[in-house]
Amino acid sequence: MNKKKIINDPVYGFISIPSGFIFDLIQHPYFQRLRYIKQVSMTHLVYPGALHTRFQHALGAMHLMALAIETLRGKGIAITVEEEEAVLAAILLHDIGHGPFSHSLEHTLVEGVSHELLSALMMDELNTTFNGQLDKAIAIFNNRYPKKFLHQLVSGQLDIDRMDYLSRDSFFTGVAEGVISFDRIIKMLHVVDNELVIEQKGIYSVEKFLIARRLMYWQVYLHKTVLGAEQMLLKILQRAKELYEQGILLFASPSLEHFLRNKITRENFTENVTHLVHFSRLDDTDIWSAIKTWAYHDDHILRMLCSRLIARSLYRTELYSTAPQDHVIVDLEERAVKYFGITAADTAYYVWVQSIENSAYEQNNSTIKILMKDGSIQDIAEASDLSNLGTLSKKVQKFAVSFPKELLTIHHQ
Amino acid sequence: MNKKKIINDPVYGFISIPSGFIFDLIQHPYFQRLRYIKQVSMTHLVYPGALHTRFQHALGAMHLMALAIETLRGKGIAITVEEEEAVLAAILLHDIGHGPFSHSLEHTLVEGVSHELLSALMMDELNTTFNGQLDKAIAIFNNRYPKKFLHQLVSGQLDIDRMDYLSRDSFFTGVAEGVISFDRIIKMLHVVDNELVIEQKGIYSVEKFLIARRLMYWQVYLHKTVLGAEQMLLKILQRAKELYEQGILLFASPSLEHFLRNKITRENFTENVTHLVHFSRLDDTDIWSAIKTWAYHDDHILRMLCSRLIARSLYRTELYSTAPQDHVIVDLEERAVKYFGITAADTAYYVWVQSIENSAYEQNNSTIKILMKDGSIQDIAEASDLSNLGTLSKKVQKFAVSFPKELLTIHHQ
Amino acid sequence: MNKKKIINDPVYGFISIPSGFIFDLIQHPYFQRLRYIKQVSMTHLVYPGALHTRFQHALGAMHLMALAIETLRGKGIAITVEEEEAVLAAILLHDIGHGPFSHSLEHTLVEGVSHELLSALMMDELNTTFNGQLDKAIAIFNNRYPKKFLHQLVSGQLDIDRMDYLSRDSFFTGVAEGVISFDRIIKMLHVVDNELVIEQKGIYSVEKFLIARRLMYWQVYLHKTVLGAEQMLLKILQRAKELYEQGILLFASPSLEHFLRNKITRENFTENVTHLVHFSRLDDTDIWSAIKTWAYHDDHILRMLCSRLIARSLYRTELYSTAPQDHVIVDLEERAVKYFGITAADTAYYVWVQSIENSAYEQNNSTIKILMKDGSIQDIAEASDLSNLGTLSKKVQKFAVSFPKELLTIHHQ
Amino acid sequence: MNKKKIINDPVYGFISIPSGFIFDLIQHPYFQRLRYIKQVSMTHLVYPGALHTRFQHALGAMHLMALAIETLRGKGIAITVEEEEAVLAAILLHDIGHGPFSHSLEHTLVEGVSHELLSALMMDELNTTFNGQLDKAIAIFNNRYPKKFLHQLVSGQLDIDRMDYLSRDSFFTGVAEGVISFDRIIKMLHVVDNELVIEQKGIYSVEKFLIARRLMYWQVYLHKTVLGAEQMLLKILQRAKELYEQGILLFASPSLEHFLRNKITRENFTENVTHLVHFSRLDDTDIWSAIKTWAYHDDHILRMLCSRLIARSLYRTELYSTAPQDHVIVDLEERAVKYFGITAADTAYYVWVQSIENSAYEQNNSTIKILMKDGSIQDIAEASDLSNLGTLSKKVQKFAVSFPKELLTIHHQ
Repeated sequence: MNKKKIINDPVYGFISIPSGFIFDLIQHPYFQRLRYIKQVSMTHLVYPGALHTRFQHALGAMHLMALAIETLRGKGIAITVEEEEAVLAAILLHDIGHGPFSHSLEHTLVEGVSHELLSALMMDELNTTFNGQLDKAIAIFNNRYPKKFLHQLVSGQLDIDRMDYLSRDSFFTGVAEGVISFDRIIKMLHVVDNELVIEQKGIYSVEKFLIARRLMYWQVYLHKTVLGAEQMLLKILQRAKELYEQGILLFASPSLEHFLRNKITRENFTENVTHLVHFSRLDDTDIWSAIKTWAYHDDHILRMLCSRLIARSLYRTELYSTAPQDHVIVDLEERAVKYFGITAADTAYYVWVQSIENSAYEQNNSTIKILMKDGSIQDIAEASDLSNLGTLSKKVQKFAVSFPKELLTIHHQ
Repeated sequence: MNKKKIINDPVYGFISIPSGFIFDLIQHPYFQRLRYIKQVSMTHLVYPGALHTRFQHALGAMHLMALAIETLRGKGIAITVEEEEAVLAAILLHDIGHGPFSHSLEHTLVEGVSHELLSALMMDELNTTFNGQLDKAIAIFNNRYPKKFLHQLVSGQLDIDRMDYLSRDSFFTGVAEGVISFDRIIKMLHVVDNELVIEQKGIYSVEKFLIARRLMYWQVYLHKTVLGAEQMLLKILQRAKELYEQGILLFASPSLEHFLRNKITRENFTENVTHLVHFSRLDDTDIWSAIKTWAYHDDHILRMLCSRLIARSLYRTELYSTAPQDHVIVDLEERAVKYFGITAADTAYYVWVQSIENSAYEQNNSTIKILMKDGSIQDIAEASDLSNLGTLSKKVQKFAVSFPKELLTIHHQ
Repeated sequence: MNKKKIINDPVYGFISIPSGFIFDLIQHPYFQRLRYIKQVSMTHLVYPGALHTRFQHALGAMHLMALAIETLRGKGIAITVEEEEAVLAAILLHDIGHGPFSHSLEHTLVEGVSHELLSALMMDELNTTFNGQLDKAIAIFNNRYPKKFLHQLVSGQLDIDRMDYLSRDSFFTGVAEGVISFDRIIKMLHVVDNELVIEQKGIYSVEKFLIARRLMYWQVYLHKTVLGAEQMLLKILQRAKELYEQGILLFASPSLEHFLRNKITRENFTENVTHLVHFSRLDDTDIWSAIKTWAYHDDHILRMLCSRLIARSLYRTELYSTAPQDHVIVDLEERAVKYFGITAADTAYYVWVQSIENSAYEQNNSTIKILMKDGSIQDIAEASDLSNLGTLSKKVQKFAVSFPKELLTIHHQ
Repeated sequence: MNKKKIINDPVYGFISIPSGFIFDLIQHPYFQRLRYIKQVSMTHLVYPGALHTRFQHALGAMHLMALAIETLRGKGIAITVEEEEAVLAAILLHDIGHGPFSHSLEHTLVEGVSHELLSALMMDELNTTFNGQLDKAIAIFNNRYPKKFLHQLVSGQLDIDRMDYLSRDSFFTGVAEGVISFDRIIKMLHVVDNELVIEQKGIYSVEKFLIARRLMYWQVYLHKTVLGAEQMLLKILQRAKELYEQGILLFASPSLEHFLRNKITRENFTENVTHLVHFSRLDDTDIWSAIKTWAYHDDHILRMLCSRLIARSLYRTELYSTAPQDHVIVDLEERAVKYFGITAADTAYYVWVQSIENSAYEQNNSTIKILMKDGSIQDIAEASDLSNLGTLSKKVQKFAVSFPKELLTIHHQ
């Protein structure tokens, strides 16, 4: 069987599958599952094109990684064929542990279990299936491989992951602001003392990358309406679990029910393999088909949240740059009690505050290194004559208050 | 509330919602449902980017329609504000009756009920809801409106529907061959004697449009692997209905179960409003979450088909330009009996032939009219010096044979 | 004659000529001349695609202006049909006074005469030709029109001129960094108290615009190799004038010779209409065909500069962030004397320093105003949470030292 | 000196210069001259963006050639490093002999000397300069190299030359119709029995390529206004030569004058090396700066043609599908005599007919071979189910009649 496939990708044109082993990884049900997990969760409710998936992202990142390896080799950096395949596998699988709706439901279906832990577990499973062929990939992924720059390509402040997701999310949302020059950045990559660096003439592209990432955060990832919708999704799952605790059963696929019915924690997750089996069968469609059915359920909270979400009759979300004062929230809660005839205990399903924050560049994290023309290495924040790039490092915090917009109609009473 | 929204669209940049009424139509649950029905069904299994939906297509077509109206008015064609809103509503709703996976399951969930009939029923429902505001749109849609060219914009051989779907499908699949110059074609539209025509200088763009459509058919819409996957989907639904007839219940959302459990025909569909209610709640996720669960069902045929589909372990599909001889199929069926240990009666789930055909241009249908520089009107087939455009009218027929690829391994025995 | 033409533009697709008067302006030889003046002078020596002209830029800016007017009218801002035509004419003609190679030779062919003065003179000429039809356009151009925002659309820190040139220069150079979301910015334009403002939700697009402009400056407009080449061009013209002063005639078109032969200053330029007549016949091809011929002239300086420029055997240009110390320049000059056997007086043709500076945003100029959601108006520098947008206002100064690269070969002696 | 440069190209993103020798070829004045020869002559008078040059086209074709070589090697076709450099050099230099305004003035400046002959002469010159390093490239160019497919990549009905110029001309004119899937076609290339073939699954892309080429011919290359303008250019040069024969000198650069003054033919061209020296100094700017000056010359025919061309006051050109009858032309000539007061002998400068023809695919030329899935080789015309692709082979002939549009105003007398 010919495994040297070429896949059409609207972002890059064509993506080649480089080897039989990579082809087999892609064919595995764990990886095929990513076809049904949207990259940016509920963002499509604001940007209708944003239906792209973790599957496409993983393939795209693999494509960019291949370009990066080619560039580095062209500059004389030694990378063996095995290392190449390993770093391609590592980037391909870096998000394998994402659950339904990516980040939105992390820590909700399974309390305290991050997608990083799940990725690690699933990679180990795959490694067993493939008789240890993933040893090197896992070492790179976990930063235990001597050639440290390989890990930095997979995970860092200017990694291949970010290059693909910015390009891809920008493409599918239609938000041109997020476009970055991934090809130029990749051509400027180099390695000095085992560390990934950018050649000096690539400095403007890196600045642009940081700015693009910042703008995508505020314009897309942290868009207030998206934030509100994703929180509704989370509240729905919380409510469903509450009902199960009360012994009320709901329509759900067997694997979704498994997580609604059982109290699974970080501690007991790894003890029973059944949990991972069911997790590996979950995707967006389990959640969405359940929500569509729950929209006709007797529980008025579950019904209200679900029917609003499927009809895109979303909560109103307002952004503030300082924490809203208590009386503002209390006022909204009192209106909710009055308008919807609910108890005070239920107001958490009607009014909530989220704190969100973002910084474009983290100065105390693995920083972006510039290889100056004189051979020295500088941090991007020093090397840039955007004199105060440091401002990009400042954490910007905002507060999102969400509530049904009907509450505004009884505002001035 | 501000209903003059602007929506980001990766294909056209921005789409404006032109009026409050159109905004309200878009907000209606019937229309929001289209968010969850993929435009090109299972095509994403071959072209991973092709996850776009009927929702995006309907908005895109509305956008192009607004450009067409602007062009025609600029050429002095009288179109009232009411007619504009009506034709925008007509194109917006032209696919409202599509069920899950668009064409793949047409006539399967509900025997003999086409999406055109369903669209008509749902438009009537909406018209009732909106107090007759859709009267004119429905008249245009059904070609009962005096200004016949308005209907031709909605439905014809060079209509706005096709311009959007070719542009959009080409964009999201990444198949550059399908790109058409929709903006140039639209700028060349004119009306003579109440009929839509194309100005002569647009003739090359129309030729290109016909060629692009032809190529998209063979490269995307009738791609052999896509055909095979869609037929697997259909066979799954057939099997599920068979099991229900035998009294075997399956996991299914209430609305999906409604169609599995009941024998609904074109005749009784309109008699009971419940049918339409349930239909209007169905989308791709009902089917997909069911299939994921059925992949673990006891019935070996259902289990086999479902588990293969979700793991993309698809049937092999081969294309032939003449009908395969009986003995070829019989041979495959015999192998299936032997290899899978099934009865002869079950072979229809293992081996099948589909006949497919396509012509780029239909000469006896509403033809594309060219307005020549001397004022005369000619059919494109005459006007084009692609001397024999007539060849594009020829129906090309092919035959697709699908079967599990394991059968090849026992081929020469 | 049909003057409602549509022009293909690779950047925007199609550009419509909105009226017969605008069509006649475009047909005028003054405007047609812009077809032969490259927008970015010698930049094509570094970015080969950058051959686009002032002609295309002017049409593109007119196109964006039409979109801006449409947006503002849609928001209820009163703009009459006459005002629309006037502001379109104003932007169309805003660069009409540019001479050969745009900015490179400004103040060289005609000492002390800026392109702004020349534009004003040529607009007056056109106004006479067109019987005062440009009165309003000229008033807008000179900020003497009561609706001040019309002038701000033509000239300001976020004007239509910049939106087109950033988009266009980015497109033709292939430097993706310069891409801006002109369509989004335009849709966010509004007018408050007669002043152009940007709605708050457009703030990220404006930040992006400022960053893109900054990057284009350093990566394209002030690219060191381009700077060096443009300075060579200027030195060539200086040398040619020197030779004329010494009575040595050179091959030159009659109009170019007019400026080589005569001492024309800002003072006497307007006294004699012949000067403007000859100026209006000059474009890039006069200069280039002369330089090609001068490459074989007896004067060794002229010959050396010209033959190097046409063969792209450019001077080496090095950038410094502080003024180079005298001894560095003196050293280079001494090498030049030795290597080329020239006199000290001629070293100015072999070694030179240019001081360049740029700031992305000027705080004391007409600032960019943001219309906040609460109705207040803020300067972008305050409104942006890119906390210290002020850093973008900082003038960055660099120094470019140019010299023949052969001088390096005799470096360490 | 680092010769491994990367060049920005708006069409492909980045183009890498693969070796020091290729870098040196690009630096040679013969090649740098191509910077000043527009790829599509006067087309920019209709499509203002079409200012791209032979320089860009040659680099672009080299880029695609590198991709093609990479693809073929990936399929196991043996191509040595020397052969790769040779075929890259061959495609880089394939148009080196083009004179000013590419095809427009071929056979005019130098009667009977084609650009192919000039290319051959200049390649030989370069080969001498580079000590025989071009031996292999020249053998490939002239189809004297054993690996015949290398020549077919350079010149054939589906060669790299065409792939680049269709992509590039389409890009810069903004005519989306010309877009082809060069990347897909290249990925489908293969070699069988030393001949270049296309794998069967690439057949739709090839059809699309042929259609795109055909459309570009009629929409761009043979656009009636472009045809008229290019013919005016040719008539201007003819008139200039006539005047020189009469002893009337004109403003012209020395190299242009060389060709106006001397009677140079195919026979004597190679006898005197001066001819080639002057030819190699000519580019579009010699012609254009002369025409601008001639627009003020005493000769009324020269003045009229030149002043019209620079002000884009072009002749009217009408297309006919059959040869216009004599009386039509005679009538126009009589009007010209009357309207312009010229002699009958001069009417050839006022009224002319051009016969143009084009076929998308030539069946008796080196045909496009398809590698069928069964391993057989078929001609595209047979392999395509565009049943009658043969119609694309039909030569379409048209007749273009050009004349000053004033003649129409005295039409009905």
